[in-house]
Parts: sequence; C-alpha cells; structure tokens
Amino acid sequence: MKALVLERQYELALREIALEAEPGPSEVLIKLHTVGICGSDVHYYTHGRIGPFVVDAPMVLGHEAAGTIVALGKGVTNLKAGDRVCMEPGIPDANSRASRLGIYNVDPSVTFWATPPVHGVLRPFVVHPANYTFKLPDNVSFAEGAMVEPFAVGIQAAMKAGIRPGDTAVVIGAGPIGIMVAVAALAGGCARAIVADLAQPKLDIAASYEGVIAVNVRERNLKKVVSQLTDGWGADIVFECSGAAQVWADIADIPRPCGTIVVVGLPVDPVQFDVAMLSTKELRVESVFRYAHQYDRALALMESGRVDLKPLISETFPFNRAIEAFERAAEGRLSDVKLQIYLGA
Amino acid sequence: MKALVLERQYELALREIALEAEPGPSEVLIKLHTVGICGSDVHYYTHGRIGPFVVDAPMVLGHEAAGTIVALGKGVTNLKAGDRVCMEPGIPDANSRASRLGIYNVDPSVTFWATPPVHGVLRPFVVHPANYTFKLPDNVSFAEGAMVEPFAVGIQAAMKAGIRPGDTAVVIGAGPIGIMVAVAALAGGCARAIVADLAQPKLDIAASYEGVIAVNVRERNLKKVVSQLTDGWGADIVFECSGAAQVWADIADIPRPCGTIVVVGLPVDPVQFDVAMLSTKELRVESVFRYAHQYDRALALMESGRVDLKPLISETFPFNRAIEAFERAAEGRLSDVKLQIYLGA
Amino acid sequence: MKALVLERQYELALREIALEAEPGPSEVLIKLHTVGICGSDVHYYTHGRIGPFVVDAPMVLGHEAAGTIVALGKGVTNLKAGDRVCMEPGIPDANSRASRLGIYNVDPSVTFWATPPVHGVLRPFVVHPANYTFKLPDNVSFAEGAMVEPFAVGIQAAMKAGIRPGDTAVVIGAGPIGIMVAVAALAGGCARAIVADLAQPKLDIAASYEGVIAVNVRERNLKKVVSQLTDGWGADIVFECSGAAQVWADIADIPRPCGTIVVVGLPVDPVQFDVAMLSTKELRVESVFRYAHQYDRALALMESGRVDLKPLISETFPFNRAIEAFERAAEGRLSDVKLQIYLGA
Amino acid sequence: MKALVLERQYELALREIALEAEPGPSEVLIKLHTVGICGSDVHYYTHGRIGPFVVDAPMVLGHEAAGTIVALGKGVTNLKAGDRVCMEPGIPDANSRASRLGIYNVDPSVTFWATPPVHGVLRPFVVHPANYTFKLPDNVSFAEGAMVEPFAVGIQAAMKAGIRPGDTAVVIGAGPIGIMVAVAALAGGCARAIVADLAQPKLDIAASYEGVIAVNVRERNLKKVVSQLTDGWGADIVFECSGAAQVWADIADIPRPCGTIVVVGLPVDPVQFDVAMLSTKELRVESVFRYAHQYDRALALMESGRVDLKPLISETFPFNRAIEAFERAAEGRLSDVKLQIYLGA
Repeated sequence: MKALVLERQYELALREIALEAEPGPSEVLIKLHTVGICGSDVHYYTHGRIGPFVVDAPMVLGHEAAGTIVALGKGVTNLKAGDRVCMEPGIPDANSRASRLGIYNVDPSVTFWATPPVHGVLRPFVVHPANYTFKLPDNVSFAEGAMVEPFAVGIQAAMKAGIRPGDTAVVIGAGPIGIMVAVAALAGGCARAIVADLAQPKLDIAASYEGVIAVNVRERNLKKVVSQLTDGWGADIVFECSGAAQVWADIADIPRPCGTIVVVGLPVDPVQFDVAMLSTKELRVESVFRYAHQYDRALALMESGRVDLKPLISETFPFNRAIEAFERAAEGRLSDVKLQIYLGA
Repeated sequence: MKALVLERQYELALREIALEAEPGPSEVLIKLHTVGICGSDVHYYTHGRIGPFVVDAPMVLGHEAAGTIVALGKGVTNLKAGDRVCMEPGIPDANSRASRLGIYNVDPSVTFWATPPVHGVLRPFVVHPANYTFKLPDNVSFAEGAMVEPFAVGIQAAMKAGIRPGDTAVVIGAGPIGIMVAVAALAGGCARAIVADLAQPKLDIAASYEGVIAVNVRERNLKKVVSQLTDGWGADIVFECSGAAQVWADIADIPRPCGTIVVVGLPVDPVQFDVAMLSTKELRVESVFRYAHQYDRALALMESGRVDLKPLISETFPFNRAIEAFERAAEGRLSDVKLQIYLGA
Repeated sequence: MKALVLERQYELALREIALEAEPGPSEVLIKLHTVGICGSDVHYYTHGRIGPFVVDAPMVLGHEAAGTIVALGKGVTNLKAGDRVCMEPGIPDANSRASRLGIYNVDPSVTFWATPPVHGVLRPFVVHPANYTFKLPDNVSFAEGAMVEPFAVGIQAAMKAGIRPGDTAVVIGAGPIGIMVAVAALAGGCARAIVADLAQPKLDIAASYEGVIAVNVRERNLKKVVSQLTDGWGADIVFECSGAAQVWADIADIPRPCGTIVVVGLPVDPVQFDVAMLSTKELRVESVFRYAHQYDRALALMESGRVDLKPLISETFPFNRAIEAFERAAEGRLSDVKLQIYLGA
Repeated sequence: MKALVLERQYELALREIALEAEPGPSEVLIKLHTVGICGSDVHYYTHGRIGPFVVDAPMVLGHEAAGTIVALGKGVTNLKAGDRVCMEPGIPDANSRASRLGIYNVDPSVTFWATPPVHGVLRPFVVHPANYTFKLPDNVSFAEGAMVEPFAVGIQAAMKAGIRPGDTAVVIGAGPIGIMVAVAALAGGCARAIVADLAQPKLDIAASYEGVIAVNVRERNLKKVVSQLTDGWGADIVFECSGAAQVWADIADIPRPCGTIVVVGLPVDPVQFDVAMLSTKELRVESVFRYAHQYDRALALMESGRVDLKPLISETFPFNRAIEAFERAAEGRLSDVKLQIYLGA
C-alpha cells in the first residue's frame, strides 16, 4: 500500500510499502480517513529522532487517526464493518503489571504508532486491536475523530488535576496541547482557564472558548493577573504546557496554598527548581504520560455538544499533498493549531 | 422592621418585628433585595415543623437571599458599602472540631436562617458575618444571587460524587434540587445527565440544558435507557434527588461496577434496601448535607458564563404579595421551579 | 485424581475425579499443600447453594490454597518449579472492561474456584494462570499462605476505607472476616480497632491483637463506648462485618461527621435503613466485593512481620479427614476462626 | 520568669525575661515539663537566622513541648488543671481562608514558637490556646509528649503520601525527621520502609524499628536495592528527607510507574531536576509544610502501643544545663536523634 514514509531525517516519500492487512482474532482492519499531524511527527521529520527513539529505518508517520472498519477478526463483537471509528495509537501488553492495574499508559512494553520502529498510519489501511478502537458518535466527524488523540492528553491532565467544580485553572502555553488542556479543564469542571503565552495568534484562538481568559505575558505579569483574579489566593491548578525551562523558576508563585501543578510540557533539559518553594505552600505536582481510558470520555464530551474541537483544525490537505502538509507544519506558523491529512472516504 | 412572619402552621403575616440591625466587629449589615422560596420554607408553612424542628414561636421565613451591603463592622476588609452580595444562611462555630477540619456544614452547633428558633431573611435588613457574605460578580443579578444557595447544594453533590471528565450521570428527580444537581454535574465535568422524573413539565425544563437527557419514567424504563446509552456498563454516578422511598428498591441496578450513588433527596421514613446489591458491584454511596466552601465556586461558574440559572426562576413576587407567593408555592405547580420575592432595590 | 467432592447438599465424598493437569502457555501446575475452609464452602455443603449459585452437579470444594509449583507453561517467567505459592481463586477475563480498568474483581465474567460450576482445589493438583499465582516469602508458611485469600478481603476493605494514619475503626462482627478486617485496618494505619460481637470467645481471639479493643455488645452499648473513646466525636470508619440486618437500624450513630461505613458482611434480605441519617452526618458508604491487586500487599505485610495470621488457624486436618473437618466447620464453634486441611507436602 | 534566651547568633543565656502568664478566655496556662531541641532551634543558635527569619532581638528558643495545665480561661471545657498535655507550636488565625478550609498549616498569618519575633517555650510557663493543646494519654510520658511535634511532621508526610496497605516506602535521609517519617509510614500502612543514608549510626537506630530495611548508600546502590526488593517495579512512595540537592538528580529512578515522591527535606538552593523523568513514569510529587490536624492522630497511635518514640530520645539535660544541651546538639553527633531538656515536674 502507498504510505507517507519518513526515509530519514528531512526526507519524506509517498511510496509503496508492504504492511499487514489481515486482522487477527480480536483485531479490526480500518480504512483510514483523516490523520492529524502531531508535533512528534514533525520532530521525527526535522530531527530524525526524539530522545532515545531514532529513525534508523524507513518509518510511516502519523498517529492521530480516524477511519472506517472494513473487516473484523473472529471474536470482535463490539464493532462491525462500516463503523466510523478512531483509534488509540498505543497498544500495551494486557497482561503487564501496569495494564492490569489500569495504568496501561505507563506499561514499558507499549508499542506506539510512528515511534521507531513501529509504523504510523499515514497509509490506506491499518490492523488494530478492537479494544483500542472506538466508535464515533453520529455527530462527530472523521476530522474531529482524528482530534481525539491529542484531546485525550488534555483529559488525562484534567483527570490528574483532580478538578473540583468551579476551580480556577492556569494553562501556561497556548500551543495545540495547551489549548486542548484548557478545553479539557473547562469541560472537566473549571470555571475559567487563564491561558498564558507570548504569541497573540495562539491566544486569540484559545480565547474563542468561553471560560478562557487569555494573558499575553509579553504585556502582563501572569502572577499579578492570577493574584488579582483570585483575590490574592492563587490558582487552584496550574497546567504547565509550554515545556519552557524558565517557567520553572517561579511557577510555584501561581498556585494557591495546597494547590496543584500538572506537568504536561516537557523541557528538553533538566530545569532549575526551588523545591523549598513547593513545600512552603504544600503544593502537589502531577504529571501526565499520554492517557489511559480517556477515549470514551473524550467522545462522550464531544457527543453531548459540551466540547467542540472543530475550531482547532487549521487546514486539511489531501493525501497527495501530505509532504507539503509536513513542510507547512515544520514552519510552525503561530496561527496553526492542527493540520490534518485527508486520505479519502 | 416589617417581615414575613410565620405565626404558626398555615398562618403568615407581613408585620413589624424587632430584629437586630447593628453589625458586630466582623459582621456586615445587608439590605435584602431578593429572597427565593425553598421547599423547607413551604414545609414550615404547611406543616409547622420539619422533623425535630418545630415552629413554636413566630419566625421570619426565607434563607435564599441576595442584597446590598449598607454598613460594616470594624475589621471587615473584604467587603464595602454598596457591594452587591449573597449570603450563606448557616453560621457555624469557627472553633468547633468540624469547622476546623473544613467541614463546617456538619458542625452540630450551626445556626441556620429560618430554622426554629432562628429568624430568616424575608425582611428589609439582616446582620451577617462577613466571612459568609459573598460579592456578586457584575454579570450576576440579585435574582441569580438568590439562587446560589440551592445551587451550592448541587455543587456539593457534584463535589462528593468525585466526577471525572466525561462521566455519565443519572439524576433521579427533576424538582428544583434535582435540576440544580444536574446543572452542577454537567458544570463539574459530566458529559451528560440523564434526568428521570414522572412529571413532563419538570423534565421539559431540565431538558433545556445542553447535556441533559430527560427520561419520563412513566413511559420508559430507566435501567434500560441507561444500559442502552452506556453499552450495558451503567452510569458512573447516580444522584438520588427524589426522596422517594421506592427508588431504593433497585437503585443499585443503575450504576456501573464501582460506580457511585449520591444521596441528595431524603425519604421521610426508613427504606427497604438490599445491602448485598451494593457489594456485588462494589458501589460507593456519598451523601450531602447542605454545603461547605461552595459559594465562591458557584459564583465563579456563574461569572464565567458556564452556568445560567435564570431559566429556573419561574416567577417573582413583590414583597407585599409575599403571602400569595407562599400560597402559590404550596400549590406545587409542576412547571414552577423557583419562586422569588423582591424586597425592593 | 482424588478430591473432596460435594455430590449434593450434605453429601461429601473423597473420591477420584478427572481434572485437567496440563498447564497452558501462561499457566502453572501447582501441587496443593494446604487449603482453608471458608464459610462459603460450608454454606454449599449445608445448603447446596448460595443465592443464584446452585450445586446441581458434583463440585470439588475449597478456594483458600497454597502449594508448590511443579510445572510451568512456556512463557511463564516470574515463577519456577519448586516455588512455594498461594493463588487467587478468581480468574477474570483480562480483556474485559472491568479488568482493563484495574477492577477485575467486578468483572462479571470472572470464574471462581468452588463456585458452581467451577471446581475448587481440595485435590492434589491444579492448573492456574501464572498471573494469579504469588510466591510465598521465606518466612510465610503454606498454612499462612492459605490465609492470604481471606486476609485479602480485609485489605480490600481497608483500602476502600481510605484510612488515614491514626484513625479509629469500629469492626462490627468478630467472625473470621471481621478479625481479618480488624487486623488489616490496624496494619493499614488505624490506631485502634474497636471490635464488637456477642460471642466472648471470638472477642478474646480478636483482643489478642495489639490495638484491638473488644466490646461485648451483650454487656456494653457500642455507641456509648465509641462516644466515650472518641470524646463524643465518633469513629472515623465503621466496618460492618456481621451481616446482621438489625445492625443497619442505627449504624449511622457510630461514625463521626463525614465518617465512613464499609459494607463487608452481607445481610441475606433487604434491610430497613434510614437514608436521612446518612445525610445528616454526610457519611460515605463503601462496599467490598472480594479483592483486586491485594495478594502482593498481603504478602508484603506478612513478610515484614507486621501481620501475623497464625493465631487465627484453629486446627488443621489431614486430607483423609477432610469430611470430618467440614462437619466440624458446620458446627460453627465460637472459638474456631479458621480450619485448614493439609493435603501433603 | 527564667528562660533560655538566644541573645544573638552563638549567644545563649539562661536569664529572667518578662512573659505573659494570664490565660485569655479560650486559653490555658501550662507549666512546661520537657522541651525537645529541634534542628531549627540549633540553626537559629548557630546562624542567627533561617532564610527570611532573622533573630534581631533576644528570643526564647524551643517549640517541642509537653507540660501540665495549671490555669484555664473561662470557656475552656475540654481541659482541666492538672492535665498532662502537649501543644502545637503554631497558632493560626481561625478565620483565615486557609484555616476555614482545614489547612491551617499554610495560613500565612500563623505565629509559631521560636520563630522570630515569637518566643519559644524553654521557660517555666506558657499561655496557649486550648484548641491547640492536647491531653496526653496515661501511657505517654512527658518526654514522649515532647516528641509529638516532630512526629506530627512524619504523620503529615504519611497522610500526603496516600499510603495504601502494604506499600513499599523509601525514606532518603535517616536524620530525626527521616526516622519519624519512616515510623509514621509504617504506622500508616506501609509494609516496609527502605531507609537510606550515608551514616551507619543513624541507620542502626532506624533499623531498630520492625519493617525498616536500612541501606548505607556508601556501600550499596539504592536504585538497585529497591529494584531487587520490588521485582524491578520500584517503590510505591519515596520520602525525600535528606534535603540534599544531589538526590534530585535521579530520584525519579526510585518510584514505580505512577508512584509518589513526598518532599520533606528542603534543599537550601534550587536543584537541577529533570521534569521529563517525572512524566515518563507519570509520577506525583507531594510536599509537606509542618502539619494540620495530626496531634490527635499521633497521640492515638502512641496510646495504642503501635508507635514507640522512646528509642529516639538520645539524652535528657536538666534546664540548668540547657546551654550545654545546645552545644551538644550543635556538634551534630551521628548517634544523636533527639536531645531534650527537662524543666522540672
């Protein structure tokens, strides 16, 4: 089948590649419809690696996907041919200690689409476990279905935060994940999400969601804004989504006493961090690694109309322009949230 | 001052009564603007008692209130004259064991407006502790401010439920509190609230909120509806708000394994309950007694536009027609959610 | 192989029966050493059924077991021949929704030893999944290993209770499970466990554990004792382990405001329960269905010397006297906690 | 009255000083019996300051105290003259936002004994709020009563950890607080506490507690020990009690996936910390600032015999040798856990 193959750093090809197309007993065969481009896809393209994961053989990119079931293995009962679906890109070992505890996202033996040496899904068909394949509600399009993967990260962050109704959240960083986290925090019970960034175009997109208060930190001091909006008490939850090391210098100024910091963005290098500042306020820090058991939650919120991710889809490219889509993504335009590739109905 | 006094069962009078009007050091004097009528106010009117609380002396009714600060005790710094406010009707002992643990709602020494022998606030002025007086955001009217009290019960129920984003809630009973709970559950992170009742007019009001699925249990079997909507898994949370004893016969059929039942409605008599059914599914039961620390959360949700309680205000009566308002409330019209009394700006 | 077979109600036989003895790929073959007699085994013997589970074909009894690995399927890496082990008697479907969430105990498709039509382990050998087979620490005997199953119920109850260090627990009912729960509650952080029963011999055994305060409710009023020991505040946690319906009439008097009741004992019939009493104190009710992920926790506590279950083994019978052991168990002697059957080294 | 006064850095005097001795309405007057020396007392002696808190006027030292009630203000009902008691050294504002939420330890307006400009209790008498004065059980000596303060820090850490029964804890640092934390973690439900330090005398004292596994990190690699003891899974909880900055370089290697790190020891300077390591394992970090609501829990554990702090009292000095006691404490002998001063019965 014809796929978008990363041959090596900076070299993409739309070309034939032999890939499995026969579902096993508890698997389904899916015809892909829409695949979103994630920052990690772009990073493999521009750097040829992410930390220890090195692209040393040609690899198909893409892991944010939606499509249609075209064949089923025996024993699959929860899905049928023709179902519109989206898929979790990570497949854990069901019998690992982590999976059995319900935290399959931290199973070290998980395999994950478009993470070397596992192929991604910018290709016509993929075989996938039925357990990690989710039916799209009627009112959720394929394009929105392909947004469930990044939104699930937002839901995981909201879950870890332990939101209580009416909480005030601060979201540092208005990139795609930052906005997803803000939307999830609001859907998850926050009264407002104070979203901070340096780039006004990103903030403008975030601000289109009711409950978001956008703060351009070039112009305003975040600590002061939060203090003012909370009568000096501080935010209940701070979601760090920028990955910027310098944020850690004074992040503990933002939350309220006994508040929570949720780590979503990952600085490349170790940061300088004043541990004593954590303790003086008795803060809690939670962290997020992908997601577990969040796809059905994400879809339920989208089905009920409580979450609308459509405004975050910036542009859609046909499959034959997939390489152009990656070049555009690599540009990093400030007004682009999510670029998607349409593989055909 | 002239107040609405319950002289005894079935006898209301709008008449002069001597009441304190001088704020102490940490208190404020409030001019009342709007007061809602609660089921408990009506119950005192029609029965002269609620359980052990007996009206054996004339008592001013009303505890859902909003108004304007007109004077302050020394040492009050968080409020000023002219502030538009709403108030918690219960005043706990700040030094009790429960209050110090942060659960002042279960402090046995709490005094509560319009609970014998404590006067309520259907009167022109009231003295109140500044700590239990909350400034209304600019976009929240007095009428909505007087809705914060019942909505805080909804938030307390949502908090106790431990909602996780995308949960499915069932709300049994679409009276004022049932609807408040549904609204709070949705604001608190539920994807949908399946609201069940026998009365279609109540269901129609509930159904006006996005995310509510109204089920008339005269026509449809609730267990079947829930099973169908959740692929046979069950609801994450069931809020029992009807107070109907028979609901307890099979309530454990509704939640999912390890799901939660939140008790909000109180049956008058002991119910028959199959404890073994709880265990087979390993269910959790939470209960709600008023609220603690929820006013600021309720107001934050209203300020951000995420919660709109205005559709629940059915009719407003001027103070001189307050007795008529109680007669109307005592009728129990199915289409009435909340009746309010306007005391003057 | 020769097994203890319940032919039908009241009829036990030690006789040959054909049973599987070949481990599959992820299974082990275990030579049984010691098997404890549980109340449910006795109930099948004396009643021929437990609720919907009817013994309508001969069934081997026994599910509290320890033994030695004698053979392994390919792919088993965490165990080896000669390992001394104990086993969980329930085998869930690893791919069910409940199992994947980490709550395999509520998986409706679980199969459980000595629950019709599944044979138990009063027999020489059994094939079992390696995942549900746990190595005994060197200082834990086979006899203690066969106690892990009921102790795991105690740990599950302690976990659900959400104990905070220094909590005061009340345990109603000093039968085998009540004592296990008291031991687990103390190991899990309670400062003291007030154990209540009518039978002094049971209380005497419970009282041998440091931290247990035994209360004979024929002589003393439990509510008064608890009130006195807690300065009128109430117990943090009440574990209901008696299964007696009348306990539910006033159980809400025992916990403190915002305290917890954990349901362990199951009344046969629905009980009369005053739901309003729950709410006045804003109590929480948790329930327990077997256990999930507790065997390794139980063994860790036994290995470290923090929990000693040996005093609860009342008498051990050789396998050829197994029927006599069941007759003794059916007597229900007040001083018997756990009877065990020794199948040979 | 005659008190131990820190005149300035390095200058202590046992001399007369005028101090309040008349209890207010909700206060008690306590005759001090035993006062422990805390690291912070020694730090003020040797450095004249701790961070922003500078000794710029003579200050009485000491805040770990037990004594006897000798007089009561009107309205004190829970205590009486002659009661043996210990006291919380911090007095929060009961009406602050933090106190009302139940987290009075993070109330910024708290005043704390022996923290400039507040005098400590190395003096004959002190006036204190009854609410923060706790009756000693009969089996708890004054010397043990004076240990409740540091032990409460251990309980706070155990509470924040969210221990589940049978957890494996690692405690980094075997100073007084490290040992208190280990004891609290075991009392709070851990099966074992792996205590790591460089100093063998400290480890020997820790190892006298059942459940402690002492690891001298000069000789053994902590990560390897933990991995071996947990079958490669990692520790459920890591309590960082050393305050050593370099520990933070690889602390994330110790916990299991989704495990917890509790910050107790405070590095003086910001540390280098790899935030990405947190997320890969989805770790949680909790922190501790003193304690709230832990004195009664600590005393309950001591009363029931489940916690014995006597082995941690290294030596007791009479009041007239108090300066010598401080000199000894300033030496920092490895075998000294807690030095106490006896002020007279």
